[in-house]
Amino acid sequence: MNEALISRNQLRLTCKGAHIVVHAAEKHAVQIGVPQCIAVTDAGGHLLAFSRMDGARIGSIEIALTKARTAATRLQRSEEVGGTNDFGKIGVALASQLKLTGMAGGVPIVVDGQVLGAVGVSSGKPDQDVAVGEAGIAALLEG
Amino acid sequence: MNEALISRNQLRLTCKGAHIVVHAAEKHAVQIGVPQCIAVTDAGGHLLAFSRMDGARIGSIEIALTKARTAATRLQRSEEVGGTNDFGKIGVALASQLKLTGMAGGVPIVVDGQVLGAVGVSSGKPDQDVAVGEAGIAALLEG
Amino acid sequence: MNEALISRNQLRLTCKGAHIVVHAAEKHAVQIGVPQCIAVTDAGGHLLAFSRMDGARIGSIEIALTKARTAATRLQRSEEVGGTNDFGKIGVALASQLKLTGMAGGVPIVVDGQVLGAVGVSSGKPDQDVAVGEAGIAALLEG
Amino acid sequence: MNEALISRNQLRLTCKGAHIVVHAAEKHAVQIGVPQCIAVTDAGGHLLAFSRMDGARIGSIEIALTKARTAATRLQRSEEVGGTNDFGKIGVALASQLKLTGMAGGVPIVVDGQVLGAVGVSSGKPDQDVAVGEAGIAALLEG
Repeated sequence: MNEALISRNQLRLTCKGAHIVVHAAEKHAVQIGVPQCIAVTDAGGHLLAFSRMDGARIGSIEIALTKARTAATRLQRSEEVGGTNDFGKIGVALASQLKLTGMAGGVPIVVDGQVLGAVGVSSGKPDQDVAVGEAGIAALLEG
Repeated sequence: MNEALISRNQLRLTCKGAHIVVHAAEKHAVQIGVPQCIAVTDAGGHLLAFSRMDGARIGSIEIALTKARTAATRLQRSEEVGGTNDFGKIGVALASQLKLTGMAGGVPIVVDGQVLGAVGVSSGKPDQDVAVGEAGIAALLEG
Repeated sequence: MNEALISRNQLRLTCKGAHIVVHAAEKHAVQIGVPQCIAVTDAGGHLLAFSRMDGARIGSIEIALTKARTAATRLQRSEEVGGTNDFGKIGVALASQLKLTGMAGGVPIVVDGQVLGAVGVSSGKPDQDVAVGEAGIAALLEG
Repeated sequence: MNEALISRNQLRLTCKGAHIVVHAAEKHAVQIGVPQCIAVTDAGGHLLAFSRMDGARIGSIEIALTKARTAATRLQRSEEVGGTNDFGKIGVALASQLKLTGMAGGVPIVVDGQVLGAVGVSSGKPDQDVAVGEAGIAALLEG
């Protein structure tokens, strides 16, 4: 086989790694007193691990999944999607058949410059959601 | 308030309980050598915890969720839904807008006669999926 | 970072590789005189390359995509999904929210034992669809 | 048959023509250093050819398809859809069941005054997406 047709040395987040992200995110959520829905996906935006903490909103489950999918498949933090313009954000959500969101709380997981997946957090305020996701990723990278 | 209008002493599965189910299910899946997608929902069929083991199929994520939702909201094992008749099973899936399935692998979590939620397992053969789910519930009940 | 939390040495199909699959599949379709819709996805079932040949059916576009997504995310040929039983196949399609199909014509692309993605072909008879997809993959592996 | 009841001499973009658009668009994307998702549809908005370049976003696949479908079936550039008013753009997306978008990056392919189809591009900035699509069409018209 012609080696130019495939790319080797790709990284993949393990199931165990995904749960470390989820549980470290939970720990941070407990510290700030905000129960959260936390989703971790692979680079294709497909779910690896999920936790809805006691007291987190059922109505935030789907949003956490969408934030994670967005950060993973757009290779950027979800709040950067659609720019700073409200219409840009709404436009991206609609044009993607609701697969993407421009809301804050989706953070890509990057190792050696590769996006391996993402964490999406929902139930708190935007800054809280982002901080909880980042705490999860920090635990993975420092683990 | 008229106490007859509300029902107290309902049971609710905690987030920690849901993760015990997931991880015990994973342990059984490792023992039988079949990586699985494992979903645990509350009584409303809403996701509490999820894990896709290394090697489990991406194409089984949605099916695990559907099996768990079915067992939780139908108060019965998913393979009992729609009876033993193939058309019955298809009919239930269609009439529920694809929210339910009659495939094996969704098992309700029952404590003191109350259905607190369910586990749904997908990636293996029907008997394997059921056994993995039951192992998860057993760990919860014995824990 | 704890190396046990990620998996290195994963393979990825390049865009060029995907087009080689598509064009070799087209060539075989011309030889057997059956214009086809041909889709190639990555391992997550996300589209990489697509071609609808002159005379291929518009109504086969979505089916080709679904067959490729199925083979990629189930790690098996699409005709193996749901077993040999009609209900099994219908049940999988419904329980997956129509993301999967048990129809023949989706073939995984496997290199060094890893599923890098899949090709899905639709417009012909089952055997023709499979043969066209296999011809595409053969060109990649021999290229 | 009454000849007045049918219209002859319609133009149709061939599969080969669609791939020329895709590959010329890819060439321009390489020149400006922005990997893109590129979709070409027929006049009915149905996919003819597609390419996701190495490094282009998975989360842009659906948007490229929506932009192309919009330009083809609205007979205009996608950024003209819904006018210059944000609500107009959102309204069109919603009223079309998310089939259309007012985002820039969808360009109709016009020959002899007939819209034969369109190209839709997504992953870059609006001007980049449009320029890549136009480069694809230019190669077709000059070919």
